[in-house]
Amino acid sequence: MPELRQNPMTKDWVIIAPERNKRPDQFVRHKAQEKIRKQEREETAACPFCPGKEDICGEAVLTYYQQDSPGQGAKSTWSLRVVRNKFPALVEGEEKARITEGSGNFFIKMSGMGFHEVVIEHPGHFQTIATMPLEAVEGVISSYIERYRALIRRPNIELITIFRNNGPRAGTSIRHPHSQIIASPIVPIHIRHVVEEAVRYYDTMGTCIYCNMMDQEKVSGKRVISESEHFLVIAPFFSRSPFETWILPKKHRASFAKISTLEKRDLAGVLINILSRLYHGLDDPDYNYMIHSAPYQEDPADYYHWHVQILPKLYEVAGFELGSGIYLNSTCPEENAQYLKEIRADVSG
Amino acid sequence: MPELRQNPMTKDWVIIAPERNKRPDQFVRHKAQEKIRKQEREETAACPFCPGKEDICGEAVLTYYQQDSPGQGAKSTWSLRVVRNKFPALVEGEEKARITEGSGNFFIKMSGMGFHEVVIEHPGHFQTIATMPLEAVEGVISSYIERYRALIRRPNIELITIFRNNGPRAGTSIRHPHSQIIASPIVPIHIRHVVEEAVRYYDTMGTCIYCNMMDQEKVSGKRVISESEHFLVIAPFFSRSPFETWILPKKHRASFAKISTLEKRDLAGVLINILSRLYHGLDDPDYNYMIHSAPYQEDPADYYHWHVQILPKLYEVAGFELGSGIYLNSTCPEENAQYLKEIRADVSG
Repeated sequence: MPELRQNPMTKDWVIIAPERNKRPDQFVRHKAQEKIRKQEREETAACPFCPGKEDICGEAVLTYYQQDSPGQGAKSTWSLRVVRNKFPALVEGEEKARITEGSGNFFIKMSGMGFHEVVIEHPGHFQTIATMPLEAVEGVISSYIERYRALIRRPNIELITIFRNNGPRAGTSIRHPHSQIIASPIVPIHIRHVVEEAVRYYDTMGTCIYCNMMDQEKVSGKRVISESEHFLVIAPFFSRSPFETWILPKKHRASFAKISTLEKRDLAGVLINILSRLYHGLDDPDYNYMIHSAPYQEDPADYYHWHVQILPKLYEVAGFELGSGIYLNSTCPEENAQYLKEIRADVSG
Repeated sequence: MPELRQNPMTKDWVIIAPERNKRPDQFVRHKAQEKIRKQEREETAACPFCPGKEDICGEAVLTYYQQDSPGQGAKSTWSLRVVRNKFPALVEGEEKARITEGSGNFFIKMSGMGFHEVVIEHPGHFQTIATMPLEAVEGVISSYIERYRALIRRPNIELITIFRNNGPRAGTSIRHPHSQIIASPIVPIHIRHVVEEAVRYYDTMGTCIYCNMMDQEKVSGKRVISESEHFLVIAPFFSRSPFETWILPKKHRASFAKISTLEKRDLAGVLINILSRLYHGLDDPDYNYMIHSAPYQEDPADYYHWHVQILPKLYEVAGFELGSGIYLNSTCPEENAQYLKEIRADVSG
C-alpha cells in the first residue's frame, strides 16, 4: 500500500509508492566508459570554461589562484573563477517598478533586473564535486559566500539562489564543473509560502521547524545518511523523488552566507561525502542541488533555517506532478538512506 | 532586457528572456523517420495496450466499442478502454485518517488510497490525439467525463487529476496513446493556493479571474492561438515554458465534468487543432497536458474556472526553478502564439 506524506514546511503532499517497484540499485546507470573517453578531446576544445578560454567568458567578478601559482596576474593559474553568465536570466539594473498591461492592471510585469553569475569551480574539465579535493570544494563554498555577500547588498535584490546543475538531465549542456548564482528582485510565492509555514510553526510551537526536524531525525536515525560536527545529512520523510537528500546545518541560521569558517570547511567535506556516495552508488547520476537561504528581509529570523537540497534527476516530472503539485516518488526514503549509508564514500582531506 | 511576469492566478513569477536566444523553430526536432519504422514491430509486440493484450491490463472499468463492431462482447473490437493502472500511485481504500510519526505528531502521513486509471485512447499503437479522427477524440473526452463522475462519488475523494504524458521526456515509456486519471483523497497545497488566489480576486473584483483573463486576451489578441464557439486557446502571458498553451472554456464552470455535449464535441476539435499545430510546428514534441478542475468541495464555485494546460517538454527544469520556484522561459509567449497560429492545422471532422 503506498503512502501519502506531508512536508511540514510547505504542506506539500507526496505519494510514497515503493510497490511501483523501483529498488535503489535499479537507478544505477551503466555508462559505456569507452564512448566517453573518445569524446573527451572534442569536448574540452569547445568548452568555454576551460583554462585558456578566459576571454570568452569575459572578466571575472571573483578569481581564486592556485597556491603554487607563479603570479596572481597570470591568466591560466586560477583555481576558480566567477563570471557573469553569457546568457543571463536577469541583467544588471535598478528599476523594480511594476508595469501593468490590460485593463484594470490585470497583468503585472517588471524589468528583469538582477544578477546571474557562473562559478567555474575548477580548471579541470572532467572534475566534479564528488571527485575534487577538499580545498577545491572549500573554495567553491567560499566563492558562494563572497558573491552572496556582494550581491545581497545591491539595490532591490530580495533573494539569492545558489544552485548546481550536474548533467544533461539536470539541465546543463556544459560538463565543466560549475554552479550558478541568481540574485532576483522578487521573493517568489513558493518561497513566501515556505516562510509562512515556518512562521506559523514558530508562532505555535515557539521553535524552528527545521531544528525540530533535525531532533526528530537524530532520534529515529532511520533516514540519517551521515552526520558531521556541524551538519546532518538525511533522506527527508517527504522526499519528492528517489534519493532526495538534505544537508541541514546544526546551528540555526536563516542565511547561508553567515556560516563560520569551521562550518564552511565541514560543509565542504560533507558535500564531497554525500555527492561521492551518490556518484559511486548510482554511477554518477545527474542531479541538481540548491542552497535554500532566507530572503534578504527575513534574515536574521528564528523561524527560517538555511539548508541544501540535493535532487538526483532519475525520473521525469510528468502530468500528475504538473497538474496536482503532488509528487510521485516510487522509492522509500528510509531504504534509500540505508543504501547511501552503506556506500563507502572516499572522502578526501 | 528580459522581463519578469506574474501569473495572477498563482502569484508565481516567470522570467521571460527571449534574449537567451531560442527562436520558436529552434525547438523543431528532426527525427530520423527510418529508425522509427525499424523499431515499430518490436514495439507493438511488447505493448500491453495493443488489441489482443486485453488480459495483461485486466478487466476494463469502461469500454467503448467500434461502431461497426460485430458484437459488444468480442474482445478486440473496442475503440477505447479504461483500465486500472498496473502500478498504481494510489489504490482503492476508504481509510483517510492521518497517522503521525515522531514526537509532537511532527510527521503526518496517511494511507495512499484513491484510484489510478489508464485511458487507452485508441487501438492503434502509433496514433496520437493530433492524428486521431474527431470521433475518437470525442470518445476520449467522454471517457474522462464518465470516469470523473464515477470516481468523484467515491468516499473521501477530494480531487481528480486527468493528464496525458506524451513521449519519454514527458515521463512515459509507452507510446500507445493513453491518458491517466488519478483520484486523490487530499487537496494539495498547490491547488489550495490557486483556489485561494481565485477567491481573493473574486472577493475584490466580484468576477472570476479566468473569465477576466479571457476578456483581456480577446481584446489584445496577441496571445490568442485559436478560438472556437466554446473555447479560447492562448499562450499565457506568464508562460512557464516554451509553447505553454491553455485551453479556456468560455462558459464559466468550476468542474470539467459538467460540460455539455456540444462543448464536449467542440473540445475534441479544439484539442486536435492545437495538438496538431504543435505536432506539425515542432515535429511531434513530447508534452504533458493536464485538465485543471475544481476540488470536489469547491464545485460549483463562481471563482474557479476549469481549463486545460498543455506543456510541451522542450527543456529541463533545473536548479533555479527547483530552488526558487521561479520558472525561466527562454521564449516570448506572443511570438510563440504567432508561430502556432500560422501553422496549418489539419483538423479532422
